[in-house]
Amino acid sequence: MDRESLQKILTEVRDGLQTVDEAIASLKNWPSEVISCATLDHHRKLRTGIPEVIFGENKDAGQIIEIANRMLRHSYVMMATRVSPEKGEAVCREVPALVYHDCARMLIGNRDKVAPDRGRGVIAVLSAGTSDMPVAEEACLTAECLGHVVARAFDVGVAGIHRLMAHQELLNSAEVFVVVAGMEGALPSVVAGLVNKPVLAVPTSIGYGTGLGGIAALLAMLNSCAPGVAVVNIDNGFGAGCMAAAINQKSSAGK
Amino acid sequence: MDRESLQKILTEVRDGLQTVDEAIASLKNWPSEVISCATLDHHRKLRTGIPEVIFGENKDAGQIIEIANRMLRHSYVMMATRVSPEKGEAVCREVPALVYHDCARMLIGNRDKVAPDRGRGVIAVLSAGTSDMPVAEEACLTAECLGHVVARAFDVGVAGIHRLMAHQELLNSAEVFVVVAGMEGALPSVVAGLVNKPVLAVPTSIGYGTGLGGIAALLAMLNSCAPGVAVVNIDNGFGAGCMAAAINQKSSAGK
Amino acid sequence: MDRESLQKILTEVRDGLQTVDEAIASLKNWPSEVISCATLDHHRKLRTGIPEVIFGENKDAGQIIEIANRMLRHSYVMMATRVSPEKGEAVCREVPALVYHDCARMLIGNRDKVAPDRGRGVIAVLSAGTSDMPVAEEACLTAECLGHVVARAFDVGVAGIHRLMAHQELLNSAEVFVVVAGMEGALPSVVAGLVNKPVLAVPTSIGYGTGLGGIAALLAMLNSCAPGVAVVNIDNGFGAGCMAAAINQKSSAGK
Amino acid sequence: MDRESLQKILTEVRDGLQTVDEAIASLKNWPSEVISCATLDHHRKLRTGIPEVIFGENKDAGQIIEIANRMLRHSYVMMATRVSPEKGEAVCREVPALVYHDCARMLIGNRDKVAPDRGRGVIAVLSAGTSDMPVAEEACLTAECLGHVVARAFDVGVAGIHRLMAHQELLNSAEVFVVVAGMEGALPSVVAGLVNKPVLAVPTSIGYGTGLGGIAALLAMLNSCAPGVAVVNIDNGFGAGCMAAAINQKSSAGK
Amino acid sequence: MDRESLQKILTEVRDGLQTVDEAIASLKNWPSEVISCATLDHHRKLRTGIPEVIFGENKDAGQIIEIANRMLRHSYVMMATRVSPEKGEAVCREVPALVYHDCARMLIGNRDKVAPDRGRGVIAVLSAGTSDMPVAEEACLTAECLGHVVARAFDVGVAGIHRLMAHQELLNSAEVFVVVAGMEGALPSVVAGLVNKPVLAVPTSIGYGTGLGGIAALLAMLNSCAPGVAVVNIDNGFGAGCMAAAINQKSSAGK
Amino acid sequence: MDRESLQKILTEVRDGLQTVDEAIASLKNWPSEVISCATLDHHRKLRTGIPEVIFGENKDAGQIIEIANRMLRHSYVMMATRVSPEKGEAVCREVPALVYHDCARMLIGNRDKVAPDRGRGVIAVLSAGTSDMPVAEEACLTAECLGHVVARAFDVGVAGIHRLMAHQELLNSAEVFVVVAGMEGALPSVVAGLVNKPVLAVPTSIGYGTGLGGIAALLAMLNSCAPGVAVVNIDNGFGAGCMAAAINQKSSAGK
Amino acid sequence: MDRESLQKILTEVRDGLQTVDEAIASLKNWPSEVISCATLDHHRKLRTGIPEVIFGENKDAGQIIEIANRMLRHSYVMMATRVSPEKGEAVCREVPALVYHDCARMLIGNRDKVAPDRGRGVIAVLSAGTSDMPVAEEACLTAECLGHVVARAFDVGVAGIHRLMAHQELLNSAEVFVVVAGMEGALPSVVAGLVNKPVLAVPTSIGYGTGLGGIAALLAMLNSCAPGVAVVNIDNGFGAGCMAAAINQKSSAGK
Amino acid sequence: MDRESLQKILTEVRDGLQTVDEAIASLKNWPSEVISCATLDHHRKLRTGIPEVIFGENKDAGQIIEIANRMLRHSYVMMATRVSPEKGEAVCREVPALVYHDCARMLIGNRDKVAPDRGRGVIAVLSAGTSDMPVAEEACLTAECLGHVVARAFDVGVAGIHRLMAHQELLNSAEVFVVVAGMEGALPSVVAGLVNKPVLAVPTSIGYGTGLGGIAALLAMLNSCAPGVAVVNIDNGFGAGCMAAAINQKSSAGK
Repeated sequence: MDRESLQKILTEVRDGLQTVDEAIASLKNWPSEVISCATLDHHRKLRTGIPEVIFGENKDAGQIIEIANRMLRHSYVMMATRVSPEKGEAVCREVPALVYHDCARMLIGNRDKVAPDRGRGVIAVLSAGTSDMPVAEEACLTAECLGHVVARAFDVGVAGIHRLMAHQELLNSAEVFVVVAGMEGALPSVVAGLVNKPVLAVPTSIGYGTGLGGIAALLAMLNSCAPGVAVVNIDNGFGAGCMAAAINQKSSAGK
Repeated sequence: MDRESLQKILTEVRDGLQTVDEAIASLKNWPSEVISCATLDHHRKLRTGIPEVIFGENKDAGQIIEIANRMLRHSYVMMATRVSPEKGEAVCREVPALVYHDCARMLIGNRDKVAPDRGRGVIAVLSAGTSDMPVAEEACLTAECLGHVVARAFDVGVAGIHRLMAHQELLNSAEVFVVVAGMEGALPSVVAGLVNKPVLAVPTSIGYGTGLGGIAALLAMLNSCAPGVAVVNIDNGFGAGCMAAAINQKSSAGK
Repeated sequence: MDRESLQKILTEVRDGLQTVDEAIASLKNWPSEVISCATLDHHRKLRTGIPEVIFGENKDAGQIIEIANRMLRHSYVMMATRVSPEKGEAVCREVPALVYHDCARMLIGNRDKVAPDRGRGVIAVLSAGTSDMPVAEEACLTAECLGHVVARAFDVGVAGIHRLMAHQELLNSAEVFVVVAGMEGALPSVVAGLVNKPVLAVPTSIGYGTGLGGIAALLAMLNSCAPGVAVVNIDNGFGAGCMAAAINQKSSAGK
Repeated sequence: MDRESLQKILTEVRDGLQTVDEAIASLKNWPSEVISCATLDHHRKLRTGIPEVIFGENKDAGQIIEIANRMLRHSYVMMATRVSPEKGEAVCREVPALVYHDCARMLIGNRDKVAPDRGRGVIAVLSAGTSDMPVAEEACLTAECLGHVVARAFDVGVAGIHRLMAHQELLNSAEVFVVVAGMEGALPSVVAGLVNKPVLAVPTSIGYGTGLGGIAALLAMLNSCAPGVAVVNIDNGFGAGCMAAAINQKSSAGK
Repeated sequence: MDRESLQKILTEVRDGLQTVDEAIASLKNWPSEVISCATLDHHRKLRTGIPEVIFGENKDAGQIIEIANRMLRHSYVMMATRVSPEKGEAVCREVPALVYHDCARMLIGNRDKVAPDRGRGVIAVLSAGTSDMPVAEEACLTAECLGHVVARAFDVGVAGIHRLMAHQELLNSAEVFVVVAGMEGALPSVVAGLVNKPVLAVPTSIGYGTGLGGIAALLAMLNSCAPGVAVVNIDNGFGAGCMAAAINQKSSAGK
Repeated sequence: MDRESLQKILTEVRDGLQTVDEAIASLKNWPSEVISCATLDHHRKLRTGIPEVIFGENKDAGQIIEIANRMLRHSYVMMATRVSPEKGEAVCREVPALVYHDCARMLIGNRDKVAPDRGRGVIAVLSAGTSDMPVAEEACLTAECLGHVVARAFDVGVAGIHRLMAHQELLNSAEVFVVVAGMEGALPSVVAGLVNKPVLAVPTSIGYGTGLGGIAALLAMLNSCAPGVAVVNIDNGFGAGCMAAAINQKSSAGK
Repeated sequence: MDRESLQKILTEVRDGLQTVDEAIASLKNWPSEVISCATLDHHRKLRTGIPEVIFGENKDAGQIIEIANRMLRHSYVMMATRVSPEKGEAVCREVPALVYHDCARMLIGNRDKVAPDRGRGVIAVLSAGTSDMPVAEEACLTAECLGHVVARAFDVGVAGIHRLMAHQELLNSAEVFVVVAGMEGALPSVVAGLVNKPVLAVPTSIGYGTGLGGIAALLAMLNSCAPGVAVVNIDNGFGAGCMAAAINQKSSAGK
Repeated sequence: MDRESLQKILTEVRDGLQTVDEAIASLKNWPSEVISCATLDHHRKLRTGIPEVIFGENKDAGQIIEIANRMLRHSYVMMATRVSPEKGEAVCREVPALVYHDCARMLIGNRDKVAPDRGRGVIAVLSAGTSDMPVAEEACLTAECLGHVVARAFDVGVAGIHRLMAHQELLNSAEVFVVVAGMEGALPSVVAGLVNKPVLAVPTSIGYGTGLGGIAALLAMLNSCAPGVAVVNIDNGFGAGCMAAAINQKSSAGK
């Protein structure tokens, strides 16, 4: 509730246009008006193209369909993450407005309504191995759905450092880097040593044995000897996409 | 080495102004010219006010003095992190240009030569408890030395959520948030739920028992239910300061 | 064995109404009379409406049916936890007196015979996310079966702190709080900062990667910076319900 | 801010006793009035005898003295936990109103002003071994400072189960149990199998090797086969004392 | 190879009954005669009733059938552990001499040929909960197949300590105790506090969440405050049975 | 309390030699008579040469002196484990009856009064490296104080397997083996493959890095591919000595 | 790019045989010439018989078929690791040039074109148990495909140390040892104590409970008391085969 | 014992040159002749210049002096690792033949008697950061004492990948690589991607927080995406030096 709304209520009370009880009714949930603020802000987000997101892992197709139908009425773009191919197919049959992206395991709706104009520059998404691609692609699609331009450079892991070097131009020009790697998780350190922009490191669960489901990569990333690296949860391409978008966001965009 | 330099060498060869051998001498380390590029970039950093940094933990006072003296000749600002009070005192006696900041346990030189003009906005540094202050202050001083404006809001942990709410204005206005917390590490999640700017979470080793030296806080931060959070190593205020600076950097600044 | 029983036996021995051997026979298992005390106490529990509970995870439908039939003859209320839908359905076909609660994955019998009169006040059960609902509901049903009034406030996690604030009245009035959260497990700390009643924190296995199957949430809760928080095992809604009931129990109730 | 205050402001606006701007000034921090509520509640706590507490581990004697002096002016009782003997002695020399309890490693002031009248019953504090005594005593003193009656039964670990059985009367009569144990942490399970009141388990770091600084005991307690057990952090006697006090609190006391 | 065999070979060489080459052929694998010794010892074991054992987990039915057929030709008794019901059924169809024990998940052959006369006394096998029974039964059957008398006392966990006390006679009379428990793993400590014979603790993977697949119970057992406890791997009933048999073995038996 | 005592009381009641109240007084703590039984048993232990033991790690010299003086009055032999040289020296100055064994870090009194006649055979204590010797020696002295004959074979680790083989005679003749090893903890597996007597494995904290303070050795021992191995806590030579003594105990000895 | 190439370009520029722009075009990817070097080296590898390898675990049959077909056109030998029997069968149906090795779970093509002439000696691959055979066989096949002679000695674990001793000749003659073991992982230490050649230790995930999926074996191997041991990831037979080949490679071979 | 020795004994028996008893005496420890072989092999090592090594961490100066004096009499070269400066100084005062290397924390004697002629090529030792230098230097000195030529390239970590590239010649020419790194441990992967010789990775404990004392680097190295990498224990420069020497050893050298 902004100053204007408050002033209007109080003025109407002063002027007898509202009774005290009516004003109390309006104001009594003011702490929840803070909430409403958030809700309004949330609506504003919808207006500005930032979608709601469904975490699909623990939901069955029916639940996703129900939420998706409700959300599509209100929002420009809709994302559901961690949706298995079976669920994805089942949902798309019922909700034709959604498209299933099988690499990223995401369901997306109204993506075409998102203009790629929210960012100050390009978000570069790099991945170490082909097996890391689903997580990388989740980051890409998330950032794109949030209105950002994404450049992909996949399979550029440190075991063949020249593959990374071949992307020198992208390394020089992007505004923020999302670097996705499993196994030993070394790529973010190398990238951060080559660029002077923020690097978001995303460990993946790719590997076996002492990879510990991504813990090895995570620890490597947290211990990067290069400053300018921050880390998100294992396999959390979505979170990296959101964080990259937040970093890349034009100053006017988020206001 | 940019196109112009290369063109200049080649043109001089063509025009007989350089012999082939001279050109080879210039070019022979070109792969290390990539390196030299980095070195030049590094020099450029020095020129633009970004300091070299000494990791003080494993070095004795003599080593720090030696490195500091060498660095002070070249750089505008100099930082040494994780310097114990004893070492700090010993170094300052020998290198009067340095100031010891005992809360952050940092040695800083030439800080007054850094103009606070590198950022697009304010970096807010929040900490949960008073014991988290050294790490938070390390982040603050690092960002300040890198030319950014920092706003501090310490001791605003979730056990008294109102203390955070009292900083609503800062929550609304900062460009990037560094949120420092030990123990259960819940503050970054709460902050990220209140702002739409990037949140860098810094776990600290404050706590005991199952705090596991900061692992508990780290895990909490990595599992934040709020998107837009990324994490650095435990107690890594310096890394958070660098990352925040990278995020907040004016587009022109890093070019 | 109380003083009266002992006095009676000894008096009868003195008075020749029992032989020494008969008395020895009565007394020789006295340490197991301590046991019998417990057994009696256990029977008393049954009489007073506190049910026996079947841990359903490692039992097949046949075993549950057998135990349930035996228990229903003796007790007012019967609970089986961690029963899969398939098992639940199979058991209900054979034991019509049981109802399967699919959210909490519990089988309950004779619930209608439990009067909600055992508690000093209301037990508030809060959960952070919708995915935490099964564990939260297990806590709710357990406490209700034990004769307590439960108020539910689900999906009030810290990423949108206003959702919690909207339940201010419940925060002010409940006698004990059960707070269920996965991922970063921050909600109990926030709740404990807002109330002055005991808070039981229940970590859930919701999350992925560094969530470590609930360990991240567990550690956060154990390290809560707010005093007045205690923790139960991951996903242990049943244990939280029991503990909440024990705390909320009227003094006369447990005697 | 309760309905009355709000009604008063609005009525004065209606009646011209306040201008709209004055009302806005009063109301503009209403969300922080929620905070102020908490603050008021905090002040109320001081009034009702619940002390502020200093976490002494990371503070030097000077800091403790400063805070203690400030606190003693305002509160009836004052506690500082995890204070080493050296710090304790140094503080007591400067702040004679404080007493150092060396077993519990606590500094306490104004303890004599606390009437033991806040609880519904007795809080029983049991410990397994003599080495667990400091943690147990921290729980005892905390609860006593909060106005509760505490009964101690130390050194009653499971390796000699009869030692516990000898306290049958206490097991039957206490309102809440704090059970402190290191090593294998089995005592809370055994106690919870003997009583029908809430049991707070406190793992201690006593042990070596696979004791893992208390992790072994913690895990045992979290996995107790007896319902009605909840756990606090390793060595957190203070937290257990607070939680026990919250559970034992008379209904009128916390209002 | 004992002195006699060696003497015989050498004497025959001396006396020309063996050529040097023949002797070399006999002796050249003498280090493997050490092996043969072991093999002979192994054969002796078969003669004395100690069976070979098949670890069934990583073998398919066909492999078990093949090995079983070969072993049954030579040995008095045969055991296969960790055999699923499906595999067990398939094997029994082909090898009628084997019996599948579904609680212990073992296949046993020729058990009736083992006389229960190898032990100095009774091996008591105690288990905490009904879910621990398969592991406990594996220990029982193993010891019985090795020629020992086993007394079972299942479901005597610490949450109802009286259930254990009811077995006082067994506690007094057995020669060695195998104590099987999951969850908090407290039972071995309690038993070891009541008896003065060796206690073998067997943690089981029963439990969930922080049970960590038996790690919690294992740690508890390793940290037992009662001396006279040793521990085997999680769910290793077979190992416990072997160790108990080794402890209980009559001195003459193993010679 | 045995049948005779009970019969005596009851007979005196019958015969009027005791009043009922007197009998109640004698009997009222019968559950604690179970305790008294244990206590009597404990006294019996003292009579039969089994000493009380002081865990010296958390006690200062004064405390040890006090307990030692009290214990020496009652027991034939006295042990204190984990006593630092400083404490040991300080205690010996005050209690000349005690001898400090600096390798094992134990204080022992009245060891000469223990006859080495309690065992059925020899206890062999093997250690892998010289650094494991303190733990091995603690096991040796403990078993010797309990009246057993111990044979030592130190520094026979698997990196030079022949060193172990040289002790073939001991491997053949001992009744129970205590095998102490740090680092990779492989020795118990090798020994258990060579003998058919029980093997107690004792991991030590010797090593660094991934030795994890003995965890690596512990895990190796728990996963021994040789049956007939059981494990005690890291560095727990005392526990191994007690367990070995319990295993080796003559049947008549423990009755 | 060597000096000659560079000299040639520069000379041509000087002599007008290349324009400056042409020279820039040749040189502008010089850093990627470093890359091209690697690529050339890679091509050289193909020429010299070292195969590309497909990590089959995360790829479906269709993907493997596509890559295999492409690779078979170019390389002499082709390997795919971690291919399930089902996938293996499906791929072989479509790509008859491939053979599925079901023990090692590998697909191999053109193996007959590899001459076993790349090594200085024999690579000995030893495994502790039959269950470790798949990993051992993966190492064997990998090394063989790389042109090395492999000698196998399986099922020679430490529980029967004589089985290893029987291979004394192999222990004396091999150039490098790959030692594969699960459970307690002791075999590499024993082998390294018997040979003076490099030992590569491969932990396997064979075991259960505290085997922790191979972590126990890994830790044992990392803590080997015998120098001359290095370790690869759990179950990484392929990596061990590559490393063994690299060690055994003739000096001329890798040039 | 080779065929010749055996043949000789047997022939002498046949020919009456030895009695049967004399032959038995020679042969009776044949299994320990295997041992003696090892012992002889050990003596051979001394003869060929391979030194015995003292693990100095758990030994005091006196013990080191005693062992050193004894060893210097017999061996050409002597090494003691993990010797603190204080101990090193104390030992050197007593044993002037020893030199203390303070970076590597080693004591070395008779190093000048070792000819650098045992290797097939150069051992390259690379380290990521200056703090990793002590471990790297320990590897260097160890390999040099074993008769190998070592080339050092320190401080070439991945955060500035060009520093590594500048050592292209060394990368091309060395026979084996020892790569030492702490923190994220990424350097071995990058090196292994650039060379086709074996890479020994040595994690160091350099780092803090989630570095977990070297575990993060260790895990990264074990999960290297580049084949041809094997790993030794954290900080185990000595082990890496030994393994590198074993790999680099001339074929004739080890015979």
